[in-house]
Amino acid sequence: MKVFDIAPVKFVGGQLLILDQTKLPGEEVYIEAITKEDIWDAIYHLRVRGAPAIGVAAGWGLYISVRGIEAETAAEFAQKVRETAGYINSARPTAVNLSWALKRMLKVMDEYLAGCEEAIALGDTLPEERKIHWVKEVLRMEAEKIQKEDEDACYAMGEYGLSLLKPGMGILTHCNAGTIATAKYGTCLAPIYLGQQQGYNFRVFADETRPLLQGARLTSWELHKSGVDVTLICDNMASSVMKKGWIDAVVVGCDRMAANGDGANKIGTSGVAILAKEYGIPFYMYVPTSTIDLDTPTGDDIKIEERKGEEIYRMWYEKPMAPEGVKTFNPAFDVTDNKYITAVITEKGIVYPPYDVNLRKIKEND
Amino acid sequence: MKVFDIAPVKFVGGQLLILDQTKLPGEEVYIEAITKEDIWDAIYHLRVRGAPAIGVAAGWGLYISVRGIEAETAAEFAQKVRETAGYINSARPTAVNLSWALKRMLKVMDEYLAGCEEAIALGDTLPEERKIHWVKEVLRMEAEKIQKEDEDACYAMGEYGLSLLKPGMGILTHCNAGTIATAKYGTCLAPIYLGQQQGYNFRVFADETRPLLQGARLTSWELHKSGVDVTLICDNMASSVMKKGWIDAVVVGCDRMAANGDGANKIGTSGVAILAKEYGIPFYMYVPTSTIDLDTPTGDDIKIEERKGEEIYRMWYEKPMAPEGVKTFNPAFDVTDNKYITAVITEKGIVYPPYDVNLRKIKEND
Repeated sequence: MKVFDIAPVKFVGGQLLILDQTKLPGEEVYIEAITKEDIWDAIYHLRVRGAPAIGVAAGWGLYISVRGIEAETAAEFAQKVRETAGYINSARPTAVNLSWALKRMLKVMDEYLAGCEEAIALGDTLPEERKIHWVKEVLRMEAEKIQKEDEDACYAMGEYGLSLLKPGMGILTHCNAGTIATAKYGTCLAPIYLGQQQGYNFRVFADETRPLLQGARLTSWELHKSGVDVTLICDNMASSVMKKGWIDAVVVGCDRMAANGDGANKIGTSGVAILAKEYGIPFYMYVPTSTIDLDTPTGDDIKIEERKGEEIYRMWYEKPMAPEGVKTFNPAFDVTDNKYITAVITEKGIVYPPYDVNLRKIKEND
Repeated sequence: MKVFDIAPVKFVGGQLLILDQTKLPGEEVYIEAITKEDIWDAIYHLRVRGAPAIGVAAGWGLYISVRGIEAETAAEFAQKVRETAGYINSARPTAVNLSWALKRMLKVMDEYLAGCEEAIALGDTLPEERKIHWVKEVLRMEAEKIQKEDEDACYAMGEYGLSLLKPGMGILTHCNAGTIATAKYGTCLAPIYLGQQQGYNFRVFADETRPLLQGARLTSWELHKSGVDVTLICDNMASSVMKKGWIDAVVVGCDRMAANGDGANKIGTSGVAILAKEYGIPFYMYVPTSTIDLDTPTGDDIKIEERKGEEIYRMWYEKPMAPEGVKTFNPAFDVTDNKYITAVITEKGIVYPPYDVNLRKIKEND
């Protein structure tokens, strides 16, 4: 399977390679990250994007940034690791998975060092050099674990999702919740890759996803490269392909799901959901349980980021495509009402309505 | 009112001026058409576009191309007019309004000359020079009439359409069925301009309309320039603005309406109609009676033009936005089912369901 060649972050033979997603779809370039500055740059310039992928990059990034550091004492080394983590975190301070992964790395380090203190108190002899060696090992293992856990979660979502699909189906997706946004497989694209391995021969339709074109640049790229039958359309063509009977299911990711099952995702998702309902097509939202926020009662409580109008009429273009001074409205996300969501696919299983009850159940089963 | 400065074709002080729509929205350039080659170029290169506007340009274009021609006899002159009409028609042979307008021009010429023959047979004396002078006058008057008739039809649609709207309403439109696509006022934008004159203070939302961006480049340009409160959005944001309660009505044009009221229009229109229905917003289609095709039973009988994928991922951009070799589906139009259309606005009045009965009534009242 070609798809397994594609991952946004690879740690191979001691080298950390990051796919430069800003170069897609024209060039497939893996950057070797050697210093903490390399990692900071990759995260800051969105060369690596997608919450889980950023977490994976942060874990490995911290490890490779500190593995060469020498210190007199483990305490001194640990202080340098903390400083490095703070520096990497400053690349995108609002990216939850970035700080989450770095905190996780620091926590295992602190736990290991606390364990050393206990062992010493009990009479063990632990040279500082040896402690430093083992801290590095602990950090390496944790980075690997962060990656593996996300890969396993995506794989599980893929298997659950695939159970809802049949060979030969036409599947529409919006934006990019694919392999390059995660450790591997993606969330809503995972069943497509697993189906591809099993000869399902899906016909996938990718919305280009204005204004940032993640569907064109990323989704159609990774599916095409993986040998999946993918057709790129403009967002406003979704109604046409559904009416033609070409679409049997819609799969999308999710940025945040409220306790009642309302799900925020890339702008345009709610419109696709309404069309799917009108045409009688099931609409599946792929939501890792970490993305279910029980403290947010409904979608109305999710604040939607508004971005600059230049993204609509200026970005990508040689000349502006709208008159100077025109007003714009450019929300980055929208909320899909729970009534349009046929099922929520998590790494722990498929959740059906009533979502207010069943999301809590699967979440509390954490 | 600023809007009356904008028209795609102006005949002023003996000069024919054509707004170069390919330069919009960056530059507002009127080209003076002096020769038949100027007209051919303007039509061929889509400097003038929109079926009614092309008809207006063709009428005036034929007149200015032949008004300087000298000939020994009226018959010789008429032959040169026919040749010129054939040449202009070759600029876009599939544009129905182009050949329609040119035929209309030739018909009045032939009728005038037939009248001359009758008068001569009855004993009148009509010098050839005088006949040629009058043929030119007849052509000028017909060009003016073609323009005036379209302007009147648009004005009438504007008045009927305005009767369905209230001051302060939020109105969403898709693509461009505006003043620059017609003689003046536009079809679905006519009520907005008439309302603007009367202080209605509409808040208009213009879908950018991928892939050709007519909403961004043309609609937002002409509304903005006319002082209308217009906000540009991506097509996939329509659901969001409707959900926010900002939209009280949707107005769109129509390229062809079947006898049962199914209406073909720019790609994306059908999706907007479904969203409007879901959010309880009236959806109005503006359809000159000439666009109602009683010989086409339903929307399924309307053939939809498919265009090149480059329009989606290559056009406008410096670099391709999708991987080389990716499949695309790029239909230029879609069909909105009659069940989503609240009312059809024609120049003769408003048509409500049942469309199969009522469209025939208004059409046969031609």
